[in-house]
Amino acid sequence: MREAYHDQLDSIFRDLSAVCGNVQEAVRLATRALLTGDAETAEAVISADSAIDEATERVEDNCFSLLSLQQPVAGDLRVIVSALRMVSELERMGDLSVHVAKIARLRVPQIAVPEEVRPTIARMAEVAEDMVSRVSQIITERDVEAAIALSRDDDEMDRLRRNSFTQLLSDDWEHGVEAAVDIALLGRYYERIADHAVSVGNRVVFVVTGSFPVASDV
Amino acid sequence: MREAYHDQLDSIFRDLSAVCGNVQEAVRLATRALLTGDAETAEAVISADSAIDEATERVEDNCFSLLSLQQPVAGDLRVIVSALRMVSELERMGDLSVHVAKIARLRVPQIAVPEEVRPTIARMAEVAEDMVSRVSQIITERDVEAAIALSRDDDEMDRLRRNSFTQLLSDDWEHGVEAAVDIALLGRYYERIADHAVSVGNRVVFVVTGSFPVASDV
Repeated sequence: MREAYHDQLDSIFRDLSAVCGNVQEAVRLATRALLTGDAETAEAVISADSAIDEATERVEDNCFSLLSLQQPVAGDLRVIVSALRMVSELERMGDLSVHVAKIARLRVPQIAVPEEVRPTIARMAEVAEDMVSRVSQIITERDVEAAIALSRDDDEMDRLRRNSFTQLLSDDWEHGVEAAVDIALLGRYYERIADHAVSVGNRVVFVVTGSFPVASDV
Repeated sequence: MREAYHDQLDSIFRDLSAVCGNVQEAVRLATRALLTGDAETAEAVISADSAIDEATERVEDNCFSLLSLQQPVAGDLRVIVSALRMVSELERMGDLSVHVAKIARLRVPQIAVPEEVRPTIARMAEVAEDMVSRVSQIITERDVEAAIALSRDDDEMDRLRRNSFTQLLSDDWEHGVEAAVDIALLGRYYERIADHAVSVGNRVVFVVTGSFPVASDV
Protein backbone atom coordinates (compact mmCIF):
# COMPACT_ATOMS: atom_id res chain seq x y z
CA MET A 1 0.00 0.00 0.00
CA ARG A 2 2.69 2.52 1.03
CA GLU A 3 4.79 1.35 -1.87
CA ALA A 4 1.97 2.01 -4.34
CA TYR A 5 1.65 5.43 -2.73
CA HIS A 6 5.30 6.27 -3.31
CA ASP A 7 5.00 5.04 -6.87
CA GLN A 8 2.16 7.50 -7.28
CA LEU A 9 4.27 10.33 -5.85
CA ASP A 10 7.10 9.47 -8.25
CA SER A 11 4.69 9.29 -11.13
CA ILE A 12 3.52 12.84 -10.41
CA PHE A 13 7.08 14.03 -10.93
CA ARG A 14 7.41 11.99 -14.11
CA ASP A 15 4.17 13.57 -15.34
CA LEU A 16 5.40 17.07 -14.45
CA SER A 17 8.59 16.44 -16.36
CA ALA A 18 6.56 15.22 -19.35
CA VAL A 19 4.40 18.38 -19.28
CA CYS A 20 7.61 20.40 -19.15
CA GLY A 21 8.85 18.52 -22.25
CA ASN A 22 5.67 19.51 -24.09
CA VAL A 23 6.13 23.12 -23.01
CA GLN A 24 9.70 23.07 -24.29
CA GLU A 25 8.46 21.82 -27.66
CA ALA A 26 5.82 24.60 -27.68
CA VAL A 27 8.47 27.27 -27.03
CA ARG A 28 10.73 25.80 -29.72
CA LEU A 29 8.04 25.57 -32.39
CA ALA A 30 6.48 28.96 -31.54
CA THR A 31 9.91 30.54 -31.99
CA ARG A 32 10.45 28.74 -35.28
CA ALA A 33 7.03 29.94 -36.50
CA LEU A 34 7.92 33.45 -35.38
CA LEU A 35 11.33 33.65 -37.02
CA THR A 36 10.32 31.99 -40.28
CA GLY A 37 6.74 33.28 -40.61
CA ASP A 38 5.46 29.73 -40.89
CA ALA A 39 1.67 29.65 -40.37
CA GLU A 40 1.47 25.86 -40.21
CA THR A 41 3.93 25.59 -37.34
CA ALA A 42 2.12 28.41 -35.53
CA GLU A 43 -1.17 26.50 -35.90
CA ALA A 44 0.50 23.35 -34.60
CA VAL A 45 1.57 25.14 -31.40
CA ILE A 46 -1.91 26.61 -30.93
CA SER A 47 -3.70 23.29 -31.34
CA ALA A 48 -1.16 21.32 -29.26
CA ASP A 49 -1.94 23.52 -26.25
CA SER A 50 -5.07 21.52 -25.39
CA ALA A 51 -2.82 18.48 -24.83
CA ILE A 52 -0.82 20.50 -22.27
CA ASP A 53 -4.08 21.56 -20.61
CA GLU A 54 -5.28 17.96 -20.43
CA ALA A 55 -1.96 16.73 -19.03
CA THR A 56 -2.19 19.53 -16.45
CA GLU A 57 -5.64 18.35 -15.41
CA ARG A 58 -4.40 14.79 -15.04
CA VAL A 59 -1.59 15.91 -12.73
CA GLU A 60 -4.10 17.97 -10.72
CA ASP A 61 -6.48 15.00 -10.42
CA ASN A 62 -3.66 12.72 -9.29
CA CYS A 63 -2.51 15.26 -6.70
CA PHE A 64 -6.02 15.65 -5.32
CA SER A 65 -6.53 11.93 -5.16
CA LEU A 66 -3.23 11.46 -3.29
CA LEU A 67 -4.11 14.30 -0.93
CA SER A 68 -7.53 12.96 -0.06
CA LEU A 69 -6.84 9.24 -0.03
CA GLN A 70 -3.40 9.11 1.53
CA GLN A 71 -3.45 11.97 4.02
CA PRO A 72 0.22 12.71 3.44
CA VAL A 73 2.25 14.65 6.00
CA ALA A 74 5.40 16.76 6.05
CA GLY A 75 7.67 16.08 3.07
CA ASP A 76 5.08 14.25 0.99
CA LEU A 77 2.54 16.97 1.55
CA ARG A 78 5.10 19.51 0.41
CA VAL A 79 5.71 17.48 -2.74
CA ILE A 80 2.05 17.26 -3.69
CA VAL A 81 1.12 20.87 -2.98
CA SER A 82 4.25 22.04 -4.82
CA ALA A 83 3.40 19.80 -7.77
CA LEU A 84 -0.02 21.45 -8.00
CA ARG A 85 1.58 24.86 -8.16
CA MET A 86 4.33 23.80 -10.56
CA VAL A 87 1.84 22.37 -13.01
CA SER A 88 -0.11 25.67 -13.03
CA GLU A 89 3.07 27.49 -13.96
CA LEU A 90 3.93 24.99 -16.69
CA GLU A 91 0.44 25.38 -18.10
CA ARG A 92 0.93 29.19 -18.20
CA MET A 93 4.24 28.72 -20.02
CA GLY A 94 2.30 26.76 -22.63
CA ASP A 95 -0.20 29.63 -22.94
CA LEU A 96 2.62 32.13 -23.37
CA SER A 97 4.04 30.01 -26.23
CA VAL A 98 0.60 30.16 -27.83
CA HIS A 99 0.72 33.97 -27.57
CA VAL A 100 4.06 33.95 -29.40
CA ALA A 101 2.61 31.64 -32.07
CA LYS A 102 -0.42 33.92 -32.48
CA ILE A 103 1.77 36.95 -33.17
CA ALA A 104 3.65 34.85 -35.75
CA ARG A 105 0.37 33.79 -37.38
CA LEU A 106 -1.03 37.32 -37.40
CA ARG A 107 1.87 38.60 -39.52
CA VAL A 108 2.09 35.76 -42.07
CA PRO A 109 3.27 36.00 -44.87
CA GLN A 110 5.43 38.68 -43.27
CA ILE A 111 7.77 37.94 -40.38
CA ALA A 112 6.87 39.81 -37.18
CA VAL A 113 10.50 40.38 -36.16
CA PRO A 114 12.47 42.90 -38.24
CA GLU A 115 15.98 41.80 -39.24
CA GLU A 116 17.89 44.15 -36.92
CA VAL A 117 16.10 43.02 -33.75
CA ARG A 118 16.16 39.36 -34.76
CA PRO A 119 19.38 38.48 -32.88
CA THR A 120 17.92 39.86 -29.63
CA ILE A 121 14.59 38.05 -29.98
CA ALA A 122 16.25 34.84 -31.20
CA ARG A 123 18.54 34.93 -28.16
CA MET A 124 15.60 35.55 -25.79
CA ALA A 125 13.85 32.55 -27.29
CA GLU A 126 17.00 30.45 -26.96
CA VAL A 127 17.46 31.40 -23.31
CA ALA A 128 13.79 30.66 -22.59
CA GLU A 129 13.88 27.27 -24.31
CA ASP A 130 17.11 26.34 -22.59
CA MET A 131 15.65 27.28 -19.20
CA VAL A 132 12.57 25.16 -19.85
CA SER A 133 14.75 22.23 -20.89
CA ARG A 134 16.77 22.53 -17.70
CA VAL A 135 13.62 22.77 -15.59
CA SER A 136 12.55 19.43 -17.00
CA GLN A 137 15.81 17.89 -15.84
CA ILE A 138 15.66 19.72 -12.50
CA ILE A 139 12.24 18.19 -11.88
CA THR A 140 13.41 14.70 -12.82
CA GLU A 141 16.60 14.82 -10.77
CA ARG A 142 15.42 17.16 -7.96
CA ASP A 143 18.60 19.12 -8.72
CA VAL A 144 18.82 22.03 -6.25
CA GLU A 145 22.09 23.44 -7.61
CA ALA A 146 20.77 23.56 -11.15
CA ALA A 147 17.56 25.19 -9.93
CA ILE A 148 19.51 27.95 -8.21
CA ALA A 149 21.64 28.47 -11.33
CA LEU A 150 18.46 29.20 -13.36
CA SER A 151 18.17 32.67 -11.87
CA ARG A 152 21.38 33.71 -13.56
CA ASP A 153 19.84 33.05 -16.97
CA ASP A 154 16.91 35.09 -15.89
CA ASP A 155 19.32 38.02 -15.50
CA GLU A 156 20.40 37.57 -19.12
CA MET A 157 16.73 37.62 -20.11
CA ASP A 158 16.25 40.96 -18.34
CA ARG A 159 19.27 42.41 -20.16
CA LEU A 160 17.96 41.19 -23.51
CA ARG A 161 14.59 42.73 -22.84
CA ARG A 162 16.19 46.09 -22.06
CA ASN A 163 18.22 45.78 -25.31
CA SER A 164 15.07 45.20 -27.30
CA PHE A 165 13.51 48.36 -25.83
CA THR A 166 16.62 50.38 -26.65
CA GLN A 167 16.39 49.21 -30.25
CA LEU A 168 12.73 49.86 -30.81
CA LEU A 169 12.77 53.26 -29.08
CA SER A 170 15.86 54.50 -30.93
CA ASP A 171 15.60 57.20 -33.61
CA ASP A 172 16.83 54.65 -36.14
CA TRP A 173 13.75 52.46 -35.72
CA GLU A 174 12.02 52.45 -39.09
CA HIS A 175 9.55 49.60 -38.75
CA GLY A 176 6.71 51.60 -37.29
CA VAL A 177 4.36 51.08 -34.40
CA GLU A 178 3.02 47.63 -35.26
CA ALA A 179 6.41 45.90 -35.29
CA ALA A 180 7.44 47.76 -32.12
CA VAL A 181 4.31 46.62 -30.29
CA ASP A 182 4.90 43.03 -31.47
CA ILE A 183 8.49 43.14 -30.18
CA ALA A 184 7.46 44.63 -26.83
CA LEU A 185 4.82 41.92 -26.31
CA LEU A 186 7.10 39.11 -27.53
CA GLY A 187 9.73 40.30 -25.07
CA ARG A 188 7.14 40.21 -22.32
CA TYR A 189 6.07 36.65 -23.23
CA TYR A 190 9.60 35.25 -23.29
CA GLU A 191 10.44 37.07 -20.08
CA ARG A 192 7.39 35.54 -18.37
CA ILE A 193 8.33 32.06 -19.61
CA ALA A 194 11.73 32.59 -17.98
CA ASP A 195 10.16 33.91 -14.76
CA HIS A 196 7.94 30.85 -14.51
CA ALA A 197 10.92 28.58 -15.16
CA VAL A 198 12.77 30.18 -12.22
CA SER A 199 9.70 29.86 -10.07
CA VAL A 200 9.24 26.15 -10.90
CA GLY A 201 12.94 25.67 -10.12
CA ASN A 202 12.45 27.39 -6.76
CA ARG A 203 9.56 25.06 -5.97
CA VAL A 204 11.82 22.08 -6.61
CA VAL A 205 14.29 23.60 -4.13
CA PHE A 206 11.39 23.90 -1.67
CA VAL A 207 10.38 20.28 -2.21
CA VAL A 208 13.91 19.04 -1.55
CA THR A 209 15.07 21.38 1.21
CA GLY A 210 11.84 22.60 2.82
CA SER A 211 12.62 26.25 2.13
CA PHE A 212 12.85 28.57 -0.85
CA PRO A 213 16.26 29.79 -2.01
CA VAL A 214 17.14 33.12 -0.39
CA ALA A 215 18.41 36.07 -2.40
CA SER A 216 22.03 35.42 -1.43
CA ASP A 217 21.90 31.93 -2.96
CA VAL A 218 20.84 33.16 -6.33
CA MET B 1 -10.34 21.28 18.67
CA ARG B 2 -12.51 20.88 15.56
CA GLU B 3 -14.04 24.25 16.24
CA ALA B 4 -10.67 25.94 16.36
CA TYR B 5 -9.91 24.18 13.11
CA HIS B 6 -12.98 25.61 11.41
CA ASP B 7 -12.13 29.03 12.78
CA GLN B 8 -8.76 28.65 11.11
CA LEU B 9 -10.40 27.71 7.81
CA ASP B 10 -12.67 30.75 8.02
CA SER B 11 -9.77 32.95 8.88
CA ILE B 12 -7.96 31.87 5.70
CA PHE B 13 -10.88 33.20 3.70
CA ARG B 14 -10.91 36.43 5.68
CA ASP B 15 -7.20 36.79 4.98
CA LEU B 16 -7.72 36.12 1.28
CA SER B 17 -10.38 38.77 1.17
CA ALA B 18 -8.07 41.22 2.93
CA VAL B 19 -5.29 40.53 0.41
CA CYS B 20 -7.84 41.12 -2.34
CA GLY B 21 -8.71 44.47 -0.74
CA ASN B 22 -5.03 45.47 -0.84
CA VAL B 23 -4.84 44.42 -4.48
CA GLN B 24 -7.88 46.54 -5.28
CA GLU B 25 -6.20 49.53 -3.65
CA ALA B 26 -3.05 48.83 -5.69
CA VAL B 27 -5.03 48.74 -8.95
CA ARG B 28 -6.86 51.95 -8.01
CA LEU B 29 -3.74 53.89 -7.04
CA ALA B 30 -1.66 52.60 -9.96
CA THR B 31 -4.37 53.82 -12.32
CA ARG B 32 -4.51 57.19 -10.60
CA ALA B 33 -0.73 57.50 -10.89
CA LEU B 34 -0.97 56.54 -14.54
CA LEU B 35 -3.72 58.94 -15.52
CA THR B 36 -2.38 61.91 -13.56
CA GLY B 37 1.37 61.32 -13.93
CA ASP B 38 1.78 61.37 -10.17
CA ALA B 39 5.16 59.95 -9.17
CA GLU B 40 4.40 59.88 -5.45
CA THR B 41 1.32 57.69 -5.89
CA ALA B 42 3.27 55.41 -8.24
CA GLU B 43 5.98 55.04 -5.57
CA ALA B 44 3.33 54.27 -2.96
CA VAL B 45 1.98 51.37 -5.07
CA ILE B 46 5.49 50.03 -5.65
CA SER B 47 6.44 50.10 -1.99
CA ALA B 48 3.08 48.75 -0.78
CA ASP B 49 3.62 45.58 -2.81
CA SER B 50 5.84 44.06 -0.13
CA ALA B 51 2.86 44.14 2.26
CA ILE B 52 0.86 42.09 -0.29
CA ASP B 53 3.77 39.65 -0.57
CA GLU B 54 3.97 39.29 3.21
CA ALA B 55 0.21 38.78 3.54
CA THR B 56 0.48 36.15 0.80
CA GLU B 57 3.18 34.33 2.76
CA ARG B 58 1.06 34.36 5.90
CA VAL B 59 -1.87 32.79 4.05
CA GLU B 60 0.49 30.17 2.61
CA ASP B 61 1.94 29.39 6.04
CA ASN B 62 -1.54 29.03 7.52
CA CYS B 63 -2.62 26.74 4.71
CA PHE B 64 0.44 24.53 5.14
CA SER B 65 -0.03 24.36 8.85
CA LEU B 66 -3.69 23.36 8.46
CA LEU B 67 -2.76 20.78 5.84
CA SER B 68 -0.09 19.17 7.94
CA LEU B 69 -1.63 19.39 11.39
CA GLN B 70 -5.27 18.72 10.61
CA GLN B 71 -5.13 16.23 7.76
CA PRO B 72 -8.26 17.64 6.19
CA VAL B 73 -10.29 15.58 3.73
CA ALA B 74 -12.76 16.24 0.89
CA GLY B 75 -14.34 19.71 1.11
CA ASP B 76 -11.86 21.15 3.59
CA LEU B 77 -8.94 19.90 1.56
CA ARG B 78 -10.45 21.56 -1.49
CA VAL B 79 -10.75 24.83 0.43
CA ILE B 80 -7.14 24.87 1.56
CA VAL B 81 -5.57 23.85 -1.73
CA SER B 82 -7.77 26.36 -3.56
CA ALA B 83 -6.79 29.08 -1.10
CA LEU B 84 -3.13 28.42 -1.85
CA ARG B 85 -3.76 28.87 -5.53
CA MET B 86 -6.01 31.90 -5.10
CA VAL B 87 -3.43 33.70 -3.04
CA SER B 88 -0.80 33.14 -5.75
CA GLU B 89 -3.11 34.76 -8.26
CA LEU B 90 -3.85 37.71 -5.98
CA GLU B 91 -0.14 38.20 -5.45
CA ARG B 92 0.35 38.31 -9.25
CA MET B 93 -2.42 40.89 -9.55
CA GLY B 94 -0.45 43.02 -7.11
CA ASP B 95 2.68 42.61 -9.25
CA LEU B 96 0.74 43.65 -12.34
CA SER B 97 -0.41 46.81 -10.56
CA VAL B 98 3.24 47.52 -9.80
CA HIS B 99 4.00 47.19 -13.53
CA VAL B 100 1.31 49.78 -14.27
CA ALA B 101 2.76 52.08 -11.60
CA LYS B 102 6.26 51.67 -13.05
CA ILE B 103 5.12 52.78 -16.50
CA ALA B 104 3.48 55.80 -14.84
CA ARG B 105 6.70 56.61 -12.96
CA LEU B 106 8.88 56.17 -16.05
CA ARG B 107 6.98 58.91 -17.92
CA VAL B 108 6.72 61.51 -15.14
CA PRO B 109 6.34 64.51 -15.58
CA GLN B 110 4.58 63.40 -18.76
CA ILE B 111 1.50 61.20 -18.71
CA ALA B 112 2.02 57.83 -20.40
CA VAL B 113 -1.50 57.72 -21.85
CA PRO B 114 -2.23 60.15 -24.73
CA GLU B 115 -5.54 62.00 -24.50
CA GLU B 116 -7.33 60.15 -27.31
CA VAL B 117 -6.70 56.67 -25.87
CA ARG B 118 -7.41 57.78 -22.32
CA PRO B 119 -11.11 56.77 -22.30
CA THR B 120 -10.19 53.23 -23.37
CA ILE B 121 -7.43 52.80 -20.81
CA ALA B 122 -9.47 54.48 -18.06
CA ARG B 123 -12.35 52.09 -18.79
CA MET B 124 -10.01 49.07 -18.77
CA ALA B 125 -8.74 50.18 -15.38
CA GLU B 126 -12.29 50.69 -14.12
CA VAL B 127 -13.38 47.23 -15.28
CA ALA B 128 -10.29 45.67 -13.68
CA GLU B 129 -10.78 47.45 -10.37
CA ASP B 130 -14.48 46.60 -10.31
CA MET B 131 -13.68 42.94 -10.97
CA VAL B 132 -11.15 42.87 -8.15
CA SER B 133 -13.66 44.50 -5.81
CA ARG B 134 -16.27 41.89 -6.70
CA VAL B 135 -13.77 39.07 -6.23
CA SER B 136 -13.22 40.27 -2.70
CA GLN B 137 -16.95 39.98 -2.02
CA ILE B 138 -17.18 36.65 -3.88
CA ILE B 139 -14.49 35.27 -1.57
CA THR B 140 -16.22 36.58 1.55
CA GLU B 141 -19.68 35.36 0.59
CA ARG B 142 -18.69 32.27 -1.47
CA ASP B 143 -21.00 33.73 -4.11
CA VAL B 144 -21.10 31.30 -7.06
CA GLU B 145 -23.50 33.38 -9.20
CA ALA B 146 -21.38 36.49 -8.87
CA ALA B 147 -18.25 34.47 -9.71
CA ILE B 148 -19.82 33.19 -12.91
CA ALA B 149 -20.94 36.73 -13.85
CA LEU B 150 -17.29 37.89 -13.70
CA SER B 151 -16.54 36.27 -17.06
CA ARG B 152 -18.88 38.68 -18.78
CA ASP B 153 -16.76 41.61 -17.67
CA ASP B 154 -13.78 39.78 -18.97
CA ASP B 155 -15.42 39.93 -22.41
CA GLU B 156 -15.65 43.72 -22.12
CA MET B 157 -11.96 43.76 -21.24
CA ASP B 158 -11.12 41.83 -24.41
CA ARG B 159 -13.16 44.30 -26.50
CA LEU B 160 -11.41 47.26 -24.89
CA ARG B 161 -8.03 45.72 -25.57
CA ARG B 162 -8.90 45.27 -29.26
CA ASN B 163 -10.07 48.92 -29.33
CA SER B 164 -6.78 50.11 -27.94
CA PHE B 165 -4.90 48.20 -30.66
CA THR B 166 -7.13 49.70 -33.36
CA GLN B 167 -6.31 53.16 -32.03
CA LEU B 168 -2.58 52.79 -31.76
CA LEU B 169 -2.21 51.02 -35.11
CA SER B 170 -4.35 53.54 -37.01
CA ASP B 171 -2.81 55.99 -39.48
CA ASP B 172 -3.96 58.83 -37.23
CA TRP B 173 -1.70 57.72 -34.37
CA GLU B 174 0.75 60.56 -33.84
CA HIS B 175 2.28 59.71 -30.49
CA GLY B 176 5.08 57.54 -31.81
CA VAL B 177 6.46 54.18 -30.80
CA GLU B 178 7.06 54.80 -27.10
CA ALA B 179 3.47 55.71 -26.25
CA ALA B 180 2.18 52.83 -28.40
CA VAL B 181 4.39 50.33 -26.58
CA ASP B 182 3.24 51.72 -23.22
CA ILE B 183 -0.41 51.34 -24.23
CA ALA B 184 0.11 47.79 -25.53
CA LEU B 185 1.79 46.73 -22.29
CA LEU B 186 -0.72 48.54 -20.08
CA GLY B 187 -3.52 46.78 -21.96
CA ARG B 188 -1.77 43.48 -21.33
CA TYR B 189 -1.42 44.21 -17.59
CA TYR B 190 -5.07 45.18 -17.08
CA GLU B 191 -6.19 42.22 -19.17
CA ARG B 192 -4.12 39.87 -17.00
CA ILE B 193 -5.54 41.38 -13.81
CA ALA B 194 -9.02 40.63 -15.21
CA ASP B 195 -8.00 37.08 -16.21
CA HIS B 196 -6.72 36.40 -12.70
CA ALA B 197 -9.93 37.83 -11.21
CA VAL B 198 -11.99 35.38 -13.30
CA SER B 199 -9.70 32.56 -12.30
CA VAL B 200 -9.98 33.36 -8.58
CA GLY B 201 -13.75 33.52 -9.04
CA ASN B 202 -13.70 30.08 -10.70
CA ARG B 203 -11.75 28.69 -7.77
CA VAL B 204 -14.44 29.94 -5.39
CA VAL B 205 -16.99 28.09 -7.55
CA PHE B 206 -14.80 24.99 -7.22
CA VAL B 207 -14.61 25.38 -3.44
CA VAL B 208 -18.38 25.65 -3.13
CA THR B 209 -19.57 23.18 -5.77
CA GLY B 210 -16.63 20.80 -6.20
CA SER B 211 -16.30 21.54 -9.91
CA PHE B 212 -15.22 24.42 -12.13
CA PRO B 213 -17.85 26.33 -14.10
CA VAL B 214 -18.24 24.87 -17.59
CA ALA B 215 -18.23 27.04 -20.70
CA SER B 216 -22.04 26.97 -20.98
CA ASP B 217 -22.39 28.58 -17.52
CA VAL B 218 -20.27 31.55 -18.44
